[in-house]
Amino acid sequence: MKRKICVVITARPSYSRIKSVLRAIKKHPDLELQLVVSGSALLERYGNVVEIMRTEGFEPDAVVYMLVEGENLVTSAKSTGMGIIELATVFNKLKPDAVLSVADRYETIATAITGAYLNIPVVHVQGGEVTGSIDEKVRHAVTKLSDLHFVSSQAAAKRVERMGERTETIFVTGCPSVDLAAEVIQKNERPVFEEIDGIDSALTQKTPYLVVLHHPVTYEWESAGEQMWELLTLISGLNMPTFWFWPNIDAGAESSVKAIHRFRKRDTLKNIHYVLNLMPERFLMLIKNSACLVGNSSVGIRESAYLGVPVVNIGSRQRGRDRGPNVIDVPHDVERIILAIKQQIMHGPYSLSSLYGEGNAGKKIADLLATVELTSQKLITY
Amino acid sequence: MKRKICVVITARPSYSRIKSVLRAIKKHPDLELQLVVSGSALLERYGNVVEIMRTEGFEPDAVVYMLVEGENLVTSAKSTGMGIIELATVFNKLKPDAVLSVADRYETIATAITGAYLNIPVVHVQGGEVTGSIDEKVRHAVTKLSDLHFVSSQAAAKRVERMGERTETIFVTGCPSVDLAAEVIQKNERPVFEEIDGIDSALTQKTPYLVVLHHPVTYEWESAGEQMWELLTLISGLNMPTFWFWPNIDAGAESSVKAIHRFRKRDTLKNIHYVLNLMPERFLMLIKNSACLVGNSSVGIRESAYLGVPVVNIGSRQRGRDRGPNVIDVPHDVERIILAIKQQIMHGPYSLSSLYGEGNAGKKIADLLATVELTSQKLITY
Amino acid sequence: MKRKICVVITARPSYSRIKSVLRAIKKHPDLELQLVVSGSALLERYGNVVEIMRTEGFEPDAVVYMLVEGENLVTSAKSTGMGIIELATVFNKLKPDAVLSVADRYETIATAITGAYLNIPVVHVQGGEVTGSIDEKVRHAVTKLSDLHFVSSQAAAKRVERMGERTETIFVTGCPSVDLAAEVIQKNERPVFEEIDGIDSALTQKTPYLVVLHHPVTYEWESAGEQMWELLTLISGLNMPTFWFWPNIDAGAESSVKAIHRFRKRDTLKNIHYVLNLMPERFLMLIKNSACLVGNSSVGIRESAYLGVPVVNIGSRQRGRDRGPNVIDVPHDVERIILAIKQQIMHGPYSLSSLYGEGNAGKKIADLLATVELTSQKLITY
Amino acid sequence: MKRKICVVITARPSYSRIKSVLRAIKKHPDLELQLVVSGSALLERYGNVVEIMRTEGFEPDAVVYMLVEGENLVTSAKSTGMGIIELATVFNKLKPDAVLSVADRYETIATAITGAYLNIPVVHVQGGEVTGSIDEKVRHAVTKLSDLHFVSSQAAAKRVERMGERTETIFVTGCPSVDLAAEVIQKNERPVFEEIDGIDSALTQKTPYLVVLHHPVTYEWESAGEQMWELLTLISGLNMPTFWFWPNIDAGAESSVKAIHRFRKRDTLKNIHYVLNLMPERFLMLIKNSACLVGNSSVGIRESAYLGVPVVNIGSRQRGRDRGPNVIDVPHDVERIILAIKQQIMHGPYSLSSLYGEGNAGKKIADLLATVELTSQKLITY
Repeated sequence: MKRKICVVITARPSYSRIKSVLRAIKKHPDLELQLVVSGSALLERYGNVVEIMRTEGFEPDAVVYMLVEGENLVTSAKSTGMGIIELATVFNKLKPDAVLSVADRYETIATAITGAYLNIPVVHVQGGEVTGSIDEKVRHAVTKLSDLHFVSSQAAAKRVERMGERTETIFVTGCPSVDLAAEVIQKNERPVFEEIDGIDSALTQKTPYLVVLHHPVTYEWESAGEQMWELLTLISGLNMPTFWFWPNIDAGAESSVKAIHRFRKRDTLKNIHYVLNLMPERFLMLIKNSACLVGNSSVGIRESAYLGVPVVNIGSRQRGRDRGPNVIDVPHDVERIILAIKQQIMHGPYSLSSLYGEGNAGKKIADLLATVELTSQKLITY
Repeated sequence: MKRKICVVITARPSYSRIKSVLRAIKKHPDLELQLVVSGSALLERYGNVVEIMRTEGFEPDAVVYMLVEGENLVTSAKSTGMGIIELATVFNKLKPDAVLSVADRYETIATAITGAYLNIPVVHVQGGEVTGSIDEKVRHAVTKLSDLHFVSSQAAAKRVERMGERTETIFVTGCPSVDLAAEVIQKNERPVFEEIDGIDSALTQKTPYLVVLHHPVTYEWESAGEQMWELLTLISGLNMPTFWFWPNIDAGAESSVKAIHRFRKRDTLKNIHYVLNLMPERFLMLIKNSACLVGNSSVGIRESAYLGVPVVNIGSRQRGRDRGPNVIDVPHDVERIILAIKQQIMHGPYSLSSLYGEGNAGKKIADLLATVELTSQKLITY
Repeated sequence: MKRKICVVITARPSYSRIKSVLRAIKKHPDLELQLVVSGSALLERYGNVVEIMRTEGFEPDAVVYMLVEGENLVTSAKSTGMGIIELATVFNKLKPDAVLSVADRYETIATAITGAYLNIPVVHVQGGEVTGSIDEKVRHAVTKLSDLHFVSSQAAAKRVERMGERTETIFVTGCPSVDLAAEVIQKNERPVFEEIDGIDSALTQKTPYLVVLHHPVTYEWESAGEQMWELLTLISGLNMPTFWFWPNIDAGAESSVKAIHRFRKRDTLKNIHYVLNLMPERFLMLIKNSACLVGNSSVGIRESAYLGVPVVNIGSRQRGRDRGPNVIDVPHDVERIILAIKQQIMHGPYSLSSLYGEGNAGKKIADLLATVELTSQKLITY
Repeated sequence: MKRKICVVITARPSYSRIKSVLRAIKKHPDLELQLVVSGSALLERYGNVVEIMRTEGFEPDAVVYMLVEGENLVTSAKSTGMGIIELATVFNKLKPDAVLSVADRYETIATAITGAYLNIPVVHVQGGEVTGSIDEKVRHAVTKLSDLHFVSSQAAAKRVERMGERTETIFVTGCPSVDLAAEVIQKNERPVFEEIDGIDSALTQKTPYLVVLHHPVTYEWESAGEQMWELLTLISGLNMPTFWFWPNIDAGAESSVKAIHRFRKRDTLKNIHYVLNLMPERFLMLIKNSACLVGNSSVGIRESAYLGVPVVNIGSRQRGRDRGPNVIDVPHDVERIILAIKQQIMHGPYSLSSLYGEGNAGKKIADLLATVELTSQKLITY
């Protein structure tokens, strides 16, 4: 009988990050994929990921509405509570042999808790990494709730082991988000600007451009709007075509979104193209071909290492995460950010780093899911 | 300004376990106690703990209904989700400087998650211990969500540190549940049987008696009713006066409770006195003076070490927990349990062990809460 | 294509009340039954209705845990909220052509609201009746949320119409609970006492006996325990064999249950047999053959009219409901209750009344569900 | 002792609609106002009503996050469930003598249910009216859950009475939303365009302009986006300055909002000014001075009757509601809408109608709340 593996996608970026795993599970003769889509992945205004999934051959087995509106700290907690209530129903219905929780966004702990309470083995992808913000607490708590760990790097494996997890439950598979990056590099295509809504027709394949991926930081969410405004002003001043992605739906997103709306209204230079969502491959292609990626997204640390794209990483959000030589870290300081961007543009593309994997994580994970012992009981090793 | 410390009591046993801390916080000139009572601590049929609290001078600042009926694995998860939804409202209203989460019952993670998401420093008491069952996952996950750790023993401190917590956030205060045990020993009174409902009047102060504290184990909840019935038959056959406490409201409790009801109806020997609840001090006094404590409660490991009472610990529930010389471990096997009880009765009282503290944990914890740095941000140490 | 009719059972008594409808829907060639079981119907300690259903050939399509523990007014509200959250998921999954909501218990409004919001036609059984307590508000609110009304009597039909519902949506089908009563009368068997747990073997088929069905009243829930105690003392004093059913899981149930537990412990006469649950037919057979039915259950008004059993109805709970000649109404007053019981025993069985239907409601309802127009849009008629 | 009246505001428009009541309660010597703000009234992206309230002297006693993201039928139901769960906590804390529920939006039933279950008298404002859509079911269900009815007109009073409510609980106070309209008329000021974000400076006090208030209809929510697009194209083609208010956060809003975003991007005429929110008085002033109000908002029926502004009411959303001579009803048909708008512009202002009240509803309601009997028990009158 096939092992039923239930993967819970809670947000837009989680999908592309885990897609190669979804594909490999679906293809594997001994595995059955159960796909649960929830959280912001269901929302129109953040780009409907379910529709993208469908076009790529993935039909959700369950859809879970869990986000309580407000986008502040209180509603983050309530959303997680709601997530547990809803996922308990879903897991009880689907009766998976294992549930797979991706990374460290606040709501991912709902998957791990619900799995653990229902005595379902919990599989964690991207554990053992280090960053600032609430993600740090969530990620390691999820590790302690999980029974199987598929990590991105040796350093991550080491950390998971030191936290008291048994060696035979930890596997360095590389990060599945890198798999897509590897595909994109193989294809070596140029980005297709036309599919970006409202794009300036003057933008040709050869114009150098920037990409911005900047999210509000939970610990600083009250000033998130101001920081966004500052960054918009600064980037706009560089006078380069820029693709600016809407931020994640986290506490603080409302003020950030508002700042963008307001800026856009007053902006006369019109260099910035606001992007809601792209198909994951198009997204990585856009990044790979950019002159510089700016912001605080983990994409700048993780996928970009493999893509060799120059990155300016702002602030504390990715603090502690291992980075390749392609990243310049700067605080949220106008002068320093400008300087770093210019330096990166001058430098141009870096060579590929396999710091976060070699592009075959999806296959490795599926093979392991089909063969390793699945249990929901464990003891700390010391 | 006083630091506001919010303590969340989620179950009957948590209250006595943390009472000395509540008292010490209330008395401390630099601290203000915010008391939240929730879960089974609010239910009549498990003994209304709120009323006991009131008679002892503690008035709840908020009351939180969070238990979804069903007492199975699915409703355990849903109850935790409900707990997070409700506690988010409460913490947002009370705005504490720290929230304190006790031990490792499944619903305690609701306190830690909500505190962490609201950027409130989370204080964990009784972390770093090792046991079987779902508690093991919950306890260590709570450690990773917490900012301050008040542990029972050096061994526990070591474990918390190895999990990546900073040394300066870990304090060996001893277990507050031992504080009450120390008080009881100082008073050296005999138990007052009269306050136990329906007690056999023939029971005098000198009759040797047993106490049973046995809870369903989450991993085995389907067979919980049968095990309870077996244990009842066995204990009843020993023909000694026995005080049997109703089990916790966990998954599996329903079948256990049913087994007790059925047994009671058919029992003709009438040696067993069923007890819903006792004031914590009376409870410990009853245990201290018993010929043997039987079951799988942590009281048999923790408070009993200090009380020096002979204990027969059944099954895997307390697996991994450090124990004093007063404990004989047996599997769930009729012969072995009988043998061990007889052996313990023969042995009589053991000498006091400070394995879980010296009886001053409450004061130590309050003093630390008043003085240590409180922060909600942390990074793993490696 | 078959019409999918989703029936939501939320409590123990709702099942027997609607069973003939379930059967008729299941048998109907143009209908498909979708069965949702929730609330106290899922709880062991109130008698597991799901198991009974299964033995009678009904397998739930979904199971919905919605009761928040506490059994007070606050948790009644929260349980209803939880019910809506959960039923929204279920209805969205099952996509029924109509949902059927039974009667007027507080949690039934969850079914009506969720159906209405999802644009699913809502069918209400037992609307248009009049009683005291919160049920009165709930019942008529459910009528205004419903699109189709299957009522018990002409009087009920009249009321539903006067509330502004269109005549062509109102059908006098009789009450489905009477269907089972009709079956029982046809079979004309004597009750089988043996299946009642712990029954006194001296009780023969010819001993006259009482049945008590008494539930806490929401408006008076604080005194529910006392009233139960008084009634127990009084009935016990009559020195007749008595079958006493455990009360519903409503606000106030805890204190009532406690009163029963306490009384049982002290009772020396041992005339009272406490019954958790019986198969619906056995239940009605027991009532039919009783010397008198005592309490405040709607069974005393509704099914008993058809069964012709003498009833003493206590207090305001059934106020306003049309009753047959077999009912003597008394306030909660010891003297008056005793007098009325004696009077009824003297009188003996009454002749059958079809006030609440003629025993074919199930079939009528199924036939209508298969043929009438189903719409979720309506306007008040005036 | 003052009577505590708890008013629950669940959405942006509810505040202005009830403001005169809030003021009158606050001023009344025998009343104490308890203000609960929830739902979309808390959301930044729909204009933060709490901040407006504060500037007008109202501080919320509780803030209730209840909206589950998704803006479809399923999440409407879930949001209502969440509302009940949260309001039960709030009402239990505030212990009001009565709760006041406004109008008929889907989530208002949460207030009525929670009040009814907690045995708190429920006061309903704006009952007895008739409209299309889900509001129709909700409004009359709230009437049946309510104990006191403050209605807008004699026709509404008649309907509430016919539904079985006792005459002495029904009061024709007029609609409080008209109170503000009366104030605005008294002041007779011209609108201040400057406070509207991004306003065209060329717009002077004398330019005739349109106002559009158009919300998605629940029954048609799948086509809501298309309808919005059509209306935008049509209005834009009229080539008049237009103030277009963002739609309510209902099921279907997402596609409507998306349609607006898309249209705005492509619009080259730039006649339309998108408005998120205005202070209620400014809002009414803007409407009063408009050449024509277009859309399907109840403002066009209710306040506009008193203001005498020409209205083109589109589609079924206000079906059944009594209207003054100032309203032309049209289906969603491009030709007919254009024609009607032109006709209304030609006609100019209508004379004032007191169909929905005379501008003193707030005072009347407060006076009644201070004096009438408050009870939570009732029986249908027939």
